[in-house]
Amino acid sequence: MNVVFIGSGNLATRLSLAMSEAGMSVRQVYSRTAENAEALAGRLGCAWTTTPEEVIGDADLYVFSLKDSALRELIARIRPNGGLWIHTAGSMPLSVFEGFTSRHGVLYPLQTFSKGRKVDFRKIPVFVEANSAADEDLLVRIARNLSDDVRLLSSDQRKYLHLAAVFACNFTNHIYALAEKILEERHIPGEVLLPLIDETAAKIHAMSPIEAQTGPAIRYDENVIRKQMDLLADKDMRTIYELISRNIHKMARDE
Amino acid sequence: MNVVFIGSGNLATRLSLAMSEAGMSVRQVYSRTAENAEALAGRLGCAWTTTPEEVIGDADLYVFSLKDSALRELIARIRPNGGLWIHTAGSMPLSVFEGFTSRHGVLYPLQTFSKGRKVDFRKIPVFVEANSAADEDLLVRIARNLSDDVRLLSSDQRKYLHLAAVFACNFTNHIYALAEKILEERHIPGEVLLPLIDETAAKIHAMSPIEAQTGPAIRYDENVIRKQMDLLADKDMRTIYELISRNIHKMARDE
Repeated sequence: MNVVFIGSGNLATRLSLAMSEAGMSVRQVYSRTAENAEALAGRLGCAWTTTPEEVIGDADLYVFSLKDSALRELIARIRPNGGLWIHTAGSMPLSVFEGFTSRHGVLYPLQTFSKGRKVDFRKIPVFVEANSAADEDLLVRIARNLSDDVRLLSSDQRKYLHLAAVFACNFTNHIYALAEKILEERHIPGEVLLPLIDETAAKIHAMSPIEAQTGPAIRYDENVIRKQMDLLADKDMRTIYELISRNIHKMARDE
Repeated sequence: MNVVFIGSGNLATRLSLAMSEAGMSVRQVYSRTAENAEALAGRLGCAWTTTPEEVIGDADLYVFSLKDSALRELIARIRPNGGLWIHTAGSMPLSVFEGFTSRHGVLYPLQTFSKGRKVDFRKIPVFVEANSAADEDLLVRIARNLSDDVRLLSSDQRKYLHLAAVFACNFTNHIYALAEKILEERHIPGEVLLPLIDETAAKIHAMSPIEAQTGPAIRYDENVIRKQMDLLADKDMRTIYELISRNIHKMARDE
């Protein structure tokens, strides 16, 4: 299985390395930026290019792993060929390939990736979709080579999955950043929060987040909430505090 | 070391059990509700009461572990004695005891507790404070008997620590609840988010949340953000989505 990667970001980096470790042959990396293309190609031991027209035409699989805004442009600029073209974006439909290539699919690994951080790919839920039964089978086999948790999912459902992931990952991480900011301003080391953060994540393996909830917002204790909001000098943080507290109370009340 | 617990909630339950396991002798539990008092006393093998006036007077340590609104009332109703009185509330100052007892302190374990879920107390950061050097020493020794991470912290600093904990735990957990809600409405099992949630928490052991951040909000991609907001039928969830996305962008820009 010969593979070309179009893109060299966080997801492209971790997915191409995982494919390479699983025995697939990554032949070439395209990136707009020479530095990024060369860095990833160096880790994979393969060729690289910054010119879409120089992308080789005889690979089996073309993985487009790009920002949404660049995806359409690159799909239009790579010369059509007989390989299976897939993208890895949660928010983009399969149909983005229509009119550019006959064989296309999606392979969406539900995880947060950073170039320098290795994650256990076998535990990552991977969601696949293709425009033919044969390529769907092929993609399922490729995905099973990487992960123990492979599922079929339509473009329409994937949009919602991606939205849920933005909450569970990006928004959660931002809440961590705000918590650390509060401590930093008081010269308390942010690391004291780690056991609490770990337990908050671990807890919902055993019970639903609604059952797991604790703290002053459940009953919307006006007194405690007002006192805590007064500690926040940042107006946006006060708004976030109030909005989420009200929403916690509403969800607890509706249960 | 003889101990009385005033309160039988999540924190009282886990702390009294941890003290008992560490060899301290919990002699009595007070709770307003007979059912709760009896349940915890049963787990500890000790006496219980629902009458503040019946709380025994000859214990070494009195742990007030109550909702903020009940704490002042109970402090006033327990007959003064020679024991050390402490509370476990992040948001309440040490001075809440003033005028009611000469020896007082605070022992604040930074963790989320549920009655039925055991946590490893040795890893929990425990913050202590007392109104005399002798009782501060005593509380540090008691806390070290329970945890490997014991620190001194003033009431003023603890307020901010508690606020940061509300973000890191209660707000994070609520974001999990919203993510699961999105999936539930599309009949996608919420458990597919667990590896992502675990990695999001694990990642910030190795890098700061600002370095760890990924996703569409960093550059505030208006197009992606608008499309995702359109998927949210719930008005409050749309507001939360927009507010946190803008705040992620702002923090990324200011770095």
